[in-house]
Amino acid sequence: MTSSRNQEDMKLARGQSSVDTEKLHIFLWGEREWQARQRIESILAKDPVFDRSRRPFLTRTELYHRALAMTNRLHELQEQHKWSAEDANLAFRILDEPLPIQLHMAAFEPVIRSQGGPTLNAQYGALIAHRGILGSYLQTELGHGTNVAALETTATYLPATREFELHSPTLTASKWWIGALGRTATHGVVQARLILPSGADAGPHLFFVQLRSLEDHRTLPGITIGDIGPKAMGGYAAVDNGFARFDRVRIPKEQMLSAFAGVTDEGEYVKPPHAKLSYGGMLYIRSSMVSSGGWTIAKAATIAIRYATVRRQGNKGKDGLERQVITYPSVYHRLLPILAHAYVFIALGRNLTASFAALLARLSAGDTALLPEMHATTAGLKVLVSSTAIGDLETARRALGGHGFSAFAGVGRLYADYVPAATYEGDNFVLDQQVVRAALKAHDALTRGAGALTPSAAYLRLLVAQDAEAQAEAEAEAEAKGGWGDPRTAVELLERRAAHMVQERARHARDPDASMDQRVSRAVTDAFVAVQVSEIVRGLEGDVGEKDAAVLRKLYTLHLLTAVESGLVDILSFGLLGEAGPGGDPSRSLRVAIKGLCEELLPEAIRLSDGFGFSDWELDSALGVYDGNVYETLYKAAQSEPLNKSEISAGYELHIRPMLERGQRLAGAKL
Amino acid sequence: MTSSRNQEDMKLARGQSSVDTEKLHIFLWGEREWQARQRIESILAKDPVFDRSRRPFLTRTELYHRALAMTNRLHELQEQHKWSAEDANLAFRILDEPLPIQLHMAAFEPVIRSQGGPTLNAQYGALIAHRGILGSYLQTELGHGTNVAALETTATYLPATREFELHSPTLTASKWWIGALGRTATHGVVQARLILPSGADAGPHLFFVQLRSLEDHRTLPGITIGDIGPKAMGGYAAVDNGFARFDRVRIPKEQMLSAFAGVTDEGEYVKPPHAKLSYGGMLYIRSSMVSSGGWTIAKAATIAIRYATVRRQGNKGKDGLERQVITYPSVYHRLLPILAHAYVFIALGRNLTASFAALLARLSAGDTALLPEMHATTAGLKVLVSSTAIGDLETARRALGGHGFSAFAGVGRLYADYVPAATYEGDNFVLDQQVVRAALKAHDALTRGAGALTPSAAYLRLLVAQDAEAQAEAEAEAEAKGGWGDPRTAVELLERRAAHMVQERARHARDPDASMDQRVSRAVTDAFVAVQVSEIVRGLEGDVGEKDAAVLRKLYTLHLLTAVESGLVDILSFGLLGEAGPGGDPSRSLRVAIKGLCEELLPEAIRLSDGFGFSDWELDSALGVYDGNVYETLYKAAQSEPLNKSEISAGYELHIRPMLERGQRLAGAKL
Repeated sequence: MTSSRNQEDMKLARGQSSVDTEKLHIFLWGEREWQARQRIESILAKDPVFDRSRRPFLTRTELYHRALAMTNRLHELQEQHKWSAEDANLAFRILDEPLPIQLHMAAFEPVIRSQGGPTLNAQYGALIAHRGILGSYLQTELGHGTNVAALETTATYLPATREFELHSPTLTASKWWIGALGRTATHGVVQARLILPSGADAGPHLFFVQLRSLEDHRTLPGITIGDIGPKAMGGYAAVDNGFARFDRVRIPKEQMLSAFAGVTDEGEYVKPPHAKLSYGGMLYIRSSMVSSGGWTIAKAATIAIRYATVRRQGNKGKDGLERQVITYPSVYHRLLPILAHAYVFIALGRNLTASFAALLARLSAGDTALLPEMHATTAGLKVLVSSTAIGDLETARRALGGHGFSAFAGVGRLYADYVPAATYEGDNFVLDQQVVRAALKAHDALTRGAGALTPSAAYLRLLVAQDAEAQAEAEAEAEAKGGWGDPRTAVELLERRAAHMVQERARHARDPDASMDQRVSRAVTDAFVAVQVSEIVRGLEGDVGEKDAAVLRKLYTLHLLTAVESGLVDILSFGLLGEAGPGGDPSRSLRVAIKGLCEELLPEAIRLSDGFGFSDWELDSALGVYDGNVYETLYKAAQSEPLNKSEISAGYELHIRPMLERGQRLAGAKL
Repeated sequence: MTSSRNQEDMKLARGQSSVDTEKLHIFLWGEREWQARQRIESILAKDPVFDRSRRPFLTRTELYHRALAMTNRLHELQEQHKWSAEDANLAFRILDEPLPIQLHMAAFEPVIRSQGGPTLNAQYGALIAHRGILGSYLQTELGHGTNVAALETTATYLPATREFELHSPTLTASKWWIGALGRTATHGVVQARLILPSGADAGPHLFFVQLRSLEDHRTLPGITIGDIGPKAMGGYAAVDNGFARFDRVRIPKEQMLSAFAGVTDEGEYVKPPHAKLSYGGMLYIRSSMVSSGGWTIAKAATIAIRYATVRRQGNKGKDGLERQVITYPSVYHRLLPILAHAYVFIALGRNLTASFAALLARLSAGDTALLPEMHATTAGLKVLVSSTAIGDLETARRALGGHGFSAFAGVGRLYADYVPAATYEGDNFVLDQQVVRAALKAHDALTRGAGALTPSAAYLRLLVAQDAEAQAEAEAEAEAKGGWGDPRTAVELLERRAAHMVQERARHARDPDASMDQRVSRAVTDAFVAVQVSEIVRGLEGDVGEKDAAVLRKLYTLHLLTAVESGLVDILSFGLLGEAGPGGDPSRSLRVAIKGLCEELLPEAIRLSDGFGFSDWELDSALGVYDGNVYETLYKAAQSEPLNKSEISAGYELHIRPMLERGQRLAGAKL
């Protein structure tokens, strides 16, 4: 087989597709951002500092130094090209590599801004914005994660000197996993239990602490700092996640983050107006995980769809060529739903960013009314997006067959960097319980007839049988229903499933089975997403025009149908899909509809993935190259492996030759 | 919290458990092997060549050389301690690291022995056995995997000189992914299409080829060899998977592996007596994957159960301590089924080894009657075990919470080395189709009334309504049925599900939905395993005595119930679990039974995992240490990170300081 065949196949595939890639770029990125993206990407891609060809061969220490070099260079470019802060953020997103600076950007800077209070912000705000100091966020401890109330680090207020004394009383109190702490950060925000002069424990609060000298970067007295070592599967290698122990380190009173809570000079505690006012930062990180999860899936989907288009395997057709693997049902049935997830999460993330801005405006005015709703929504979405994306990345990798296990395929790297998303920013299993708690609260209010349903609990309206409006709506829906091809069919089913699951969970409030909370949380979030998707679908024509909207509508419907498919156990358990019986499988019509949709979408797959707009430099995958020239690219990449530098391995004289000589002696043969 | 608390918790947990660990060792390993294992492990664990403390920090080149050193040392120890070949194999299994030599052992040696014919074996048999030459097995090509008929490498017979000419006509014909080829092997078995003097293509055959000089290890003329580069997630780093291209390389006629097929001096093809006689090797590798998958799961289960026993998180109890995380339903519901999988696959693997020995004896007598059955069984089991184990490893890693993402936790390394099992030795999605084909064939024979059902298709008997014997059996079973606590309930349900799935698949023979083959394959294999498990359960009392049998019986039943749970979509689709309806969830009784079983097993979890008998050196996990001293071990491990060698990173002057100075300048502040 020749390599030009690959490129020919790719051209043919693009020729068969009808969607307008440019329209997709703008739909997915927004017009302004897509233009900025093009401009910035072309600068980064040709700058040698951002070269990726040696990346697979570097040690952690080398990767860490490369990350610093890239960060410094990016800020240099920002100054040179007069990029706005927004442009610089976009540049980091385009770079899309885990870097120490991200903790400064995602945690340190926002928490100082929102909770630091005027004094700290006046003193440090500009320095933080321009990276005149580099921050980290010290929460998790070696022995403590999810339950911040149990953190062991203390900040004891000393009225005599108006200072706090930070202390790590035990080994397990060591701050641990703190990004950028190991070798980089000059400052940090430390979460510690506030101990008042009365001896009372006021619980966890935040304190601004300098960690390293701004003269020579030496660790300040009383602090022990280090890197916690390599991560699983080589993930996050360039980030210096670190540990720190404090031995009675004193900081001035002004360094408590005091926008909401505080201490008087005498040591009286000043309560925050609302216990959850400080949750904004965490909600921001969780809500931004929706679109970033979508973009990560998008990369894997692009790589897998491109490779499956040019890879030929199996029986030969009339043209003497084996089939393109993407034409096998077992392959496209895995890849097209992944493509749909990316489109869903990207659009959903945009909606969420808007909701979050509204929340923030209300919060800064001391209004916390939107908090519980936003909290429940983002918790459920964080679980859904992170578990879906982790699964999708591995599904995409396996769809590459054997070559998917090559580092040059690029999907393994995406996986290793993404997989901690299941446990960071709230362990998914813990968040599930929060989603269930909110759903049960809404269910309880509904049964007590108290208050209106919030959007995240709207599905519960289906439980109110006597509600005439709901009845009418259901009948109208049933009438309008055009089978599985109509998105409303799936949306309604997913909402009914959520309603029944929550009702069942309430019924067994005291003795749920061991996996029930996971299933209820999933059902509730699936229903929420389904409603959002149906709204996105309604807006498509306005977004991309009639022709492309027809294609995207199918893609979003595929998401809905596969969500129903993955929820079939619940749906069948509650008899929501008609009669089951030995006469046949009632889920078959759904599965046949999914297959049909996939077949209709198949010719559009290449351009739908082109629509994300990734360059070859961004994907950095031998199997995902735009022109389809996968085998030559893979072959060339292999030549750069350090083991290939010499014809004979240094291990030959030391180990191989003695082994061969021993073997020949024992076999009584000398060759 | 103090570290002694961890050790205290571990002691208490062991004290609460009733099972006899020593009996479990012998049940799982067999008496002779357990004794040998103890002896060999103690030698390896204290030998510095097998030290693992630097492993997380080594480059691929260093890991490759370490692998060679370990291999050479192991053969040195074999000679020194007069280990049998069986002992040496056991030593490699205890070492349990991917090594180049494994391809010699698992592929090269067996294929020469079974298919090499007398001449090759006389000349090379002893050399191969004693590693006087080192082999590799060259099948997969850059452009070709599953479909060996499409391989491009040719071996053209030249009658004039009685030679074969090996040739790689294109880039995509390059052999690729070949273990030990990159830098190690001296010889290889090459799969190439045999071209006869007539020009006829006789399809793929095997040829023995010397690759490197035995004098100086240089690559022989006409051959281009190299390493294919790093693997995803750092997996298989120490193995030199390689590529090779042949430029008209000539080998004597005797180097064709000719036990079954051959060529006359004149170039006439000599057909093999049975087309599938050469399948033995692949079946051997696949069947050995059952127990090795079980032992891999066992390691992850041991680590996760130990850590979850000492990790405390959540609300504090009366003793002022947070709860042990293993007591949370969402944790034990994930970990105990994994433990059960390990026990199932280990026992199943032993049965399979016995079946394979029987098959091999028949095959060497030219009798291929058992082949199709063994082929279908091992294909299904390979898919089931590899997908289960991959899922279980990641489930175990996530159950470790945030610390599970540390390389020192050890589970990420197990995952990275194991995950290619889904695509090697037959891609799981391709194998599913073979399982379905065999099931449909059996179904077809049954409906035609032809022949008896083989063990792998025994579940189909349930479709024969008029079969009086089956009726009686079903009634007797129904009578004996003691609900979910009786293993027969789950076994019967899993068999019924398989029967219905195959019948449904036959009904839609021409238009299966896109995921149907995966579901049918899983249902068929689940049923086969369930029957085997029920037989293992019957033998337990004889194996470990009444008291421990009662515990193991629960563990094996847990496997059956969770298999039913994961098959609920099919089971509900065919109405096999009674009526579904809005009145409640018919699957609840199953889930409550699973929770109940887990709660009964919970106090035994620590000793059931101790039963595998892994030493701390074997597990190499800071979170899985035997004594529970996890935090101190993790803290110590972090100190060895190379980034911690100097207080100030070399990147400070180069990158951090310029960044800080720029930021301070832009902020108009000098600190």
